[in-house]
Amino acid sequence: MSKEAGRNKIKRHKDRGHYDELTINQILDDGKICHVGFTVDQQPFVIPMAYARQGHSLILHGAPNSRLLNQLANGIPACVTVTHLDGLVLARSTFHHSLNFRSVVAFGKARAIELLDEKHAALIAITEHLAPGRTAVARAATDEEAMATSVVLFEIEEASAKIRTGPPIDSPKDMALDVWAGVIPTSIQEHAPLAAPDLKPGITYE
Amino acid sequence: MSKEAGRNKIKRHKDRGHYDELTINQILDDGKICHVGFTVDQQPFVIPMAYARQGHSLILHGAPNSRLLNQLANGIPACVTVTHLDGLVLARSTFHHSLNFRSVVAFGKARAIELLDEKHAALIAITEHLAPGRTAVARAATDEEAMATSVVLFEIEEASAKIRTGPPIDSPKDMALDVWAGVIPTSIQEHAPLAAPDLKPGITYE
Repeated sequence: MSKEAGRNKIKRHKDRGHYDELTINQILDDGKICHVGFTVDQQPFVIPMAYARQGHSLILHGAPNSRLLNQLANGIPACVTVTHLDGLVLARSTFHHSLNFRSVVAFGKARAIELLDEKHAALIAITEHLAPGRTAVARAATDEEAMATSVVLFEIEEASAKIRTGPPIDSPKDMALDVWAGVIPTSIQEHAPLAAPDLKPGITYE
Repeated sequence: MSKEAGRNKIKRHKDRGHYDELTINQILDDGKICHVGFTVDQQPFVIPMAYARQGHSLILHGAPNSRLLNQLANGIPACVTVTHLDGLVLARSTFHHSLNFRSVVAFGKARAIELLDEKHAALIAITEHLAPGRTAVARAATDEEAMATSVVLFEIEEASAKIRTGPPIDSPKDMALDVWAGVIPTSIQEHAPLAAPDLKPGITYE
């Protein structure tokens, strides 16, 4: 899946490009939302979606009449990108300001998952990816619920990761400037749980 | 820019769709990274980029020989999406698990910014968007630096926002289950600044 080929080749900042599966999978597994790109009548669309990785594929799901999923299930070429913002890079010169990030750009095609067992497994994978441990406590999907969901498997043909880490890289001539330089690290923070207003009394979040 | 037309019409969960400029601009202004979609030889690409909003346009920049920017500058149809993850929505049933999010999907075309003054202003806007206040302290870009950067203006023709907020919505029959339900709010957290290892002594972050 991760071999360097044509469309996934990193051309700018080659030192930031990665093609190994471990790196790519880690970035995919660290995200909750991917951006799915596809083209209809020459018009590109980029739609945010929840997902889960399963081997060399990503599971996507939605309503049965979703335009996006129906198009994808036709097997049109697609591109799925996952990006994490890791920091604001503040340089001594405005020109060298940057962002620390990790991203994966994956190319491939999708197919509909129709078999009920495969669908249930895919839906469990998505829920577990979004909220690990929840399928052990929440009521499992019924066959009717699974049938009322479109699920597609996006099979990754080629992918590449791009990573920027570390401090700003200023020009030697700017090193003596009296300007603070460094990184403001950023991450997605999970805050204290907010119980649903209609939560049955006596149930606490674990 | 934000009128409901064809390609930007929200079809699923219409109640979550928004077309007003204030809502759209707020979501665009809250992000640091956008996902830029375009198509070359039938192949869709989705590339993460820094950006800044300027009126009804988004400024994008990169290296002069960037494949992405060169394609965009040709005026091909593009789609730029900005998404914020606001929470994990934990329902009593796996089926009703969801994500709270805000996203904008914008359609339009880009043109190269060639005029040096316009380019300087665009680069300042991007730096200020990424790190507000920095252009007042960091060394300004020289003409040479501006000329060594490709800058494009993506002009938004149509856009829509989609927002999910609030608690899970479970089926009435599941309300009695002994399962915690609610939201784990999420946000991007900025952590303590990390000074560059080669920072000139005596300069502190303000």
